[in-house]
Amino acid sequence: MRCDTLWQNANLMTLNDASGGLGVVRDGMIAATEGRIVYAGPANTAPAFIPAERIDCGGRWISPGLIDCHTHLVYAGNRAGEFEQRLQGVSYADIARAGGGIVSTVRATRAADDAGLIAASLPRLDAMLAEGVTTIEIKSGYGLSLPDERKQLRVAAELGRLRKVEVVPTFLGAHAVPPDHEAQAYINDVSAVMIPAIAAEGLAEAVDIFCENIAFSPAQAQQVFEAARAHGLAIKIHAEQLSNQHGAELAARHGALSADHIEHLDDAGIAAMRTAGTVAVLLPGAFYFTRETVLPPIQKLRDAGVPLALATDSNPGTSPLTSPLLTMNMGATLFRLTVDECIAGFTREAARALGRSDRLGRLVAGMDCDLAIWDIEAPADLVYRIGFNPLHARIWRGHAA
Amino acid sequence: MRCDTLWQNANLMTLNDASGGLGVVRDGMIAATEGRIVYAGPANTAPAFIPAERIDCGGRWISPGLIDCHTHLVYAGNRAGEFEQRLQGVSYADIARAGGGIVSTVRATRAADDAGLIAASLPRLDAMLAEGVTTIEIKSGYGLSLPDERKQLRVAAELGRLRKVEVVPTFLGAHAVPPDHEAQAYINDVSAVMIPAIAAEGLAEAVDIFCENIAFSPAQAQQVFEAARAHGLAIKIHAEQLSNQHGAELAARHGALSADHIEHLDDAGIAAMRTAGTVAVLLPGAFYFTRETVLPPIQKLRDAGVPLALATDSNPGTSPLTSPLLTMNMGATLFRLTVDECIAGFTREAARALGRSDRLGRLVAGMDCDLAIWDIEAPADLVYRIGFNPLHARIWRGHAA
Ligand SMILES: [Zn+2]
Ligand SMILES: [Zn+2]
Repeated sequence: MRCDTLWQNANLMTLNDASGGLGVVRDGMIAATEGRIVYAGPANTAPAFIPAERIDCGGRWISPGLIDCHTHLVYAGNRAGEFEQRLQGVSYADIARAGGGIVSTVRATRAADDAGLIAASLPRLDAMLAEGVTTIEIKSGYGLSLPDERKQLRVAAELGRLRKVEVVPTFLGAHAVPPDHEAQAYINDVSAVMIPAIAAEGLAEAVDIFCENIAFSPAQAQQVFEAARAHGLAIKIHAEQLSNQHGAELAARHGALSADHIEHLDDAGIAAMRTAGTVAVLLPGAFYFTRETVLPPIQKLRDAGVPLALATDSNPGTSPLTSPLLTMNMGATLFRLTVDECIAGFTREAARALGRSDRLGRLVAGMDCDLAIWDIEAPADLVYRIGFNPLHARIWRGHAA
Repeated sequence: MRCDTLWQNANLMTLNDASGGLGVVRDGMIAATEGRIVYAGPANTAPAFIPAERIDCGGRWISPGLIDCHTHLVYAGNRAGEFEQRLQGVSYADIARAGGGIVSTVRATRAADDAGLIAASLPRLDAMLAEGVTTIEIKSGYGLSLPDERKQLRVAAELGRLRKVEVVPTFLGAHAVPPDHEAQAYINDVSAVMIPAIAAEGLAEAVDIFCENIAFSPAQAQQVFEAARAHGLAIKIHAEQLSNQHGAELAARHGALSADHIEHLDDAGIAAMRTAGTVAVLLPGAFYFTRETVLPPIQKLRDAGVPLALATDSNPGTSPLTSPLLTMNMGATLFRLTVDECIAGFTREAARALGRSDRLGRLVAGMDCDLAIWDIEAPADLVYRIGFNPLHARIWRGHAA
């Protein structure tokens, strides 16, 4: 049987395991043709392939390419100075009064042109790719006006053309109330003007909102969700990060793909997510960086069978993090996720959180051939080590990338 | 004035600031000849150099090469599996009963030959170098017998020949009681046999001990310190990590270079360290990984003027960390160190903890020309970002490395 490429002498984490495991295959083999997997499994039961290219993996491990399902990667400006001030004892309120905080990122992002935004964002994307990322979700939300939100989403799409990576764009117009606006008037604009335009232009496939006592209310989230649904867009939510607003429950009732953060999620929220199949996207980088102390209800989510994904939440204010591997370690160290949960959280479950379970996140015939090949002794090495990158090769759509 | 190399169009963190700052020089210049700095300062007051090689740094920042002053980098074996078991709920006691824990590292390190230990350790060293490390302390302590401790120190020295980096070897025979030994008998052996041999062979320049209720007592530490002093070796201590054993105070009274960990340090210990000039080496990676909750008394150390260094503590059991930059972020995020303290902790103060203040850790004429050149907008970028490496170039003894 002919194929384009054959990776042999490899151990596989297929993630093809209904019970949540890694689906490990020792002495495995992957064959791909035209960017798709045609075989992934044991070498000794594989068809006899005649590959155009044959790659000996030297006993290395292959996982699906990593999927970062929650990032705010595209922005301009630099908030390191603000971080430095906080360490010197300056209060958040004083920083905000001086024009710092999210407002400074909005200002810089609005001021940047496409080229400037690309130049600022590419090094962050490249850091992700260097750790095996093959799919990345990127949210808008630092424009907070239709032209500036469009610009962020346009740049996100352009990043996907500049690098061998699949970019999944999410419209997060409802990230914060823009300067000199009133919240409800802005939400009316998001719902009646921005969502229809973004949907018509094909700039995003999902709509997200920051539902929190310092941001938008559940009623406003509902309004946004209804607009999203009316225009054929999927739904996500930043929920229960600082307090329990019952946002995850609301989002799940609207069929949300994921509810993200959820440190303060309650039992009703868990039940609603389970019923809807909404993925819990855990963001330990933000938990770490903001020195949060309330843990997400991991064991209850597990017991309920809610799918658990992990993501970097890469953003300048609360998670200036561009390392999926470190995020896995934080998932284990801070949230006590198992090794299998951490790896599944950046592959199979992340694909689910992006509505791509049929095509990404597992090594199964018919799916896109996105691979990460690792110089490790066992899957646990990916999670255990801190600040070390054992990526040997990244394969995107069947080709070294 | 002739020189070998001139780095110009750079901003400098000279660390040459008696009040603890970064000694920033904007539009600075560094000249080096025969591996030593001959000028580091403002461009506009510099002598007119005629360099053999002129390097335009494009406005980048230059700091002293990073110094990791506390590592256990040389070992064999892999404890990722143990980490995985802990996440699955297996107790530490059960893992130890099954031959896990430090004993497994000792077993693997003893079983490895020099080549095997080098092969296991080099990727860890390379990860450090990739982030701008130019000097690294490496402790023994997984051999726990004279031949095996010698082997670790020999390999540490060999790493310094294989890569362009200065290795500072420390004898940590008193790391743990070896299997089938009694603590006091082993300490007698360490003091009467091992220290004299290691000193005579020039294999280490300092002696360290793990003084803790699960390791060695203060009286045993005193015995080891006296042997070290008698044989002309400097002194360091792992102190007050899990409980207050007054080890730092004891070590300071013996003129210790540093007392490391010190989460449970009390006022008397701080006073003794201040009097002796003993450096406080803070290890936030171990704090993070072991989910410690008692913080070192940072503000009291600051108030007392005790020098603060930072280090990775790179080791397989409690800090499988090979990223100085991430360690800086942890120092800021977890310990609330300032940006200046984090950077000084991996340069000027780390040099002090290794007894090399006269030669390393600052950009001053006459000192070794070890540099890290960074693609950053400001020093705070080194500390603020998580899992991102902006190193542009590493210079060791005046040469790109
Ligand atoms: Zn977010
Ligand atoms: Zn240590």
